[in-house]
Amino acid sequence: MENLQTVAKPEDGIDITGQLQVAVEAKDVETISIMLDGLPLSDALRELLNLSVADRDAVLSMIPPTLAAQLIEEAPQSTATELVERLSTMRAAEIIEEMDSDIQADMIGDLDHKDAEAILAAMDADDAADVRRLSEYEDGTAGGLMAAETFSFPETATVGAVLRGLASEDDDFERYRGQHPYIIDADGKPVGVVSLRGLLTSKRSAPLTSIMVEPLVVRADAPLDELQDLFDKFPFLGLPVVEADGRLVGALSRSAVDTAALERAQVEGLRLQGIVGDELRSMPLGIRSRRRLAWLSANIVLNIIAASVISAYEDTLTAVIAIAVFLPMVSDMSGCSGNQAVGVTMRELSLGLVRPRDAFRVWMKEASVGVVNGIALGILIGIVAWIWKGNPWLGMVIGLALALNTVLAVSIGGVVPLALKRIGQDPAVASGPLLTTITDMAGFFLVLSLASMMMPLLVG
Amino acid sequence: MENLQTVAKPEDGIDITGQLQVAVEAKDVETISIMLDGLPLSDALRELLNLSVADRDAVLSMIPPTLAAQLIEEAPQSTATELVERLSTMRAAEIIEEMDSDIQADMIGDLDHKDAEAILAAMDADDAADVRRLSEYEDGTAGGLMAAETFSFPETATVGAVLRGLASEDDDFERYRGQHPYIIDADGKPVGVVSLRGLLTSKRSAPLTSIMVEPLVVRADAPLDELQDLFDKFPFLGLPVVEADGRLVGALSRSAVDTAALERAQVEGLRLQGIVGDELRSMPLGIRSRRRLAWLSANIVLNIIAASVISAYEDTLTAVIAIAVFLPMVSDMSGCSGNQAVGVTMRELSLGLVRPRDAFRVWMKEASVGVVNGIALGILIGIVAWIWKGNPWLGMVIGLALALNTVLAVSIGGVVPLALKRIGQDPAVASGPLLTTITDMAGFFLVLSLASMMMPLLVG
Repeated sequence: MENLQTVAKPEDGIDITGQLQVAVEAKDVETISIMLDGLPLSDALRELLNLSVADRDAVLSMIPPTLAAQLIEEAPQSTATELVERLSTMRAAEIIEEMDSDIQADMIGDLDHKDAEAILAAMDADDAADVRRLSEYEDGTAGGLMAAETFSFPETATVGAVLRGLASEDDDFERYRGQHPYIIDADGKPVGVVSLRGLLTSKRSAPLTSIMVEPLVVRADAPLDELQDLFDKFPFLGLPVVEADGRLVGALSRSAVDTAALERAQVEGLRLQGIVGDELRSMPLGIRSRRRLAWLSANIVLNIIAASVISAYEDTLTAVIAIAVFLPMVSDMSGCSGNQAVGVTMRELSLGLVRPRDAFRVWMKEASVGVVNGIALGILIGIVAWIWKGNPWLGMVIGLALALNTVLAVSIGGVVPLALKRIGQDPAVASGPLLTTITDMAGFFLVLSLASMMMPLLVG
Repeated sequence: MENLQTVAKPEDGIDITGQLQVAVEAKDVETISIMLDGLPLSDALRELLNLSVADRDAVLSMIPPTLAAQLIEEAPQSTATELVERLSTMRAAEIIEEMDSDIQADMIGDLDHKDAEAILAAMDADDAADVRRLSEYEDGTAGGLMAAETFSFPETATVGAVLRGLASEDDDFERYRGQHPYIIDADGKPVGVVSLRGLLTSKRSAPLTSIMVEPLVVRADAPLDELQDLFDKFPFLGLPVVEADGRLVGALSRSAVDTAALERAQVEGLRLQGIVGDELRSMPLGIRSRRRLAWLSANIVLNIIAASVISAYEDTLTAVIAIAVFLPMVSDMSGCSGNQAVGVTMRELSLGLVRPRDAFRVWMKEASVGVVNGIALGILIGIVAWIWKGNPWLGMVIGLALALNTVLAVSIGGVVPLALKRIGQDPAVASGPLLTTITDMAGFFLVLSLASMMMPLLVG
């Protein structure tokens, strides 16, 4: 019995990396393949990416194409593209042939046009045609996520034909796992679907049309959100995908939708942290630095704008230098409060529980949290400032500024992603910097203007 | 033909919320059910959560239990629990009976012990026993994610028995969609699995043992990461789950694993933003404020520690007040750079591409990005400070401080999540505050100590 416990896990003490390195240097393809195949895929990919670029290319050129295909599929898209681009055309074609057609289309779509054409020319003609057809659909739509192969039969087919298909040795059968057979009319439109139960309880000579039911179909341009909803609502493992004219063009599996949703959540989480694109440490330094700097340079401009508020109040600051201690604290705390609200809105957006037009409701809900938390944090920091610097009025200035700025930050934080989405900007990338700039400016202004007003009490 | 386009989508101009409110006030259960059933699930849930608490309870008590179950399953776990807790015991039992056994166990496990027992007592005895059994497994393991029902047959069964099972009208068949039939021995251990192809190409009288192959099994305590790996590696739609003694205890579906991974990614994204627990705006104000404050109060203490560095240099600051303008900028920019590194490490952790023991390699990789970006940002802000305040030495102090602090922030940001994971802390919750405190302190110290050293040049 093949038990999971027989699958090797990298334990402390067993030097997988070292053993792999030895095998790579010896060009011992059998040992390399057994080692990589024996590891969980993510571990195998990590070991592969830890090798030097030359060794990595050598390994992917030597190991069985199915294993190479699994490793490349496990990698995030941009890393996968990089791995494929470095292979010879023949080898790349051989590996890509092992992938499902939706993954093939993603891979080919991400390559340079010239590389892509060369690989397609080296592939099986039918597969290449499928890939060309799939490449025309947008990522994150039913068309972009579907497999080109469908398990479909003409209206004239019998139950026996389907059962023979299911029982055949055709490897393509594996691709239809869990999919139902679709019946298509002369125009290529799906007009029926049959259940396994229907097939097993009917005579082999019965026409499929006698046991088919109307299929639920999905349009090729349906976006990911809609697809997630659909699979949440219906228990199907796959759905037929149709063009605007009703023609069947592919089959969409539940797992392709789930995988796309997970990838989107992960990339969105990165964007909130200021990483645009799906960076991995195995990418070249130049690309990693450049991508991060692009976001940081925009941020530095916003920071300068916020800091100009401090510059305008240098006299106040010189008179009560203790305030300088609290400026970063007020702006940082407000930024944190606001980011919590951004996080909740981003989550509700991804769950479909909130839409741009709900901004007012969100604002009301967040403002109340802002008031409660603003009062609590304001009192806390006010007491700290009073005790630390020995001046109750200073405590009042700082506490009041933080309280007001928290209300502002939380209300704005909840609404900013919705506003950005409404104007067609990516809320994950821009919400944080925009929020922080506003709350920094407001925080600096509140502390310094309150301090200016109460100057006699502060310097007394 | 049931076409997706016939599913109502909330268009601008159609006031779904208003219409639903009218139907709720009229207690028009048919209209309410048709409206909610016609919407995509996430939209229907949003409309439900937007109702007053009393109306929400009334709707869930009136609509068909299958629809109520779908809506509750669509909600994030804590919201789902809240919705169920407010229902009568009988009604809650009726709705929960409609869910799959793994979801049932999650729901029951999250309720108060007393509520849970009352609902179990009101449920079908067999279902209740399954739930009790499943509740003993930990969340996020194969046991916690599996369904209690398996499609299993004794070693003595024939091909005909399986085909009759597949063809039966038993509603439970739906639960086995895509699962293969397992053959279990007298001790309840899975000893074989048969393929549909095998079933269709064999005589009905053939014993299952003649066509079965050894199954790949998964241990009930296998964690989510391992399960994701397994389904990435093998194309199965489901796997048999066994106890330590080898007994078959349930069936794990690919889609349960995918769904758990997505939920984990979303909740982890929220934690990085300072939201612990899966907050939605439909939750009570008290809970939302308290949860956010818990994290913020810890953060305020860290902020005070960082600000104390400024306090120690008040003389320097008074002498060169222009520095106060740049203090928040240096700390904020470093924090952003560090958070980018945190984001990449969190992603690599979730993809299994990095482990705590890889900290040194990560540190080397990040340090190089830190040096490149530190030099770029340092030059940029140095020039800004020079031009703005008209003093090249001030530009040098600020630029050098930002450059050094960026290297520090990026290196620490990459390693902090690994260190936290190593000592058993949640990297998503603690990485941000820990990183920010360190980079704030270091940033303030670098700016102010460099300024102290170069004081004659700055005030000259």
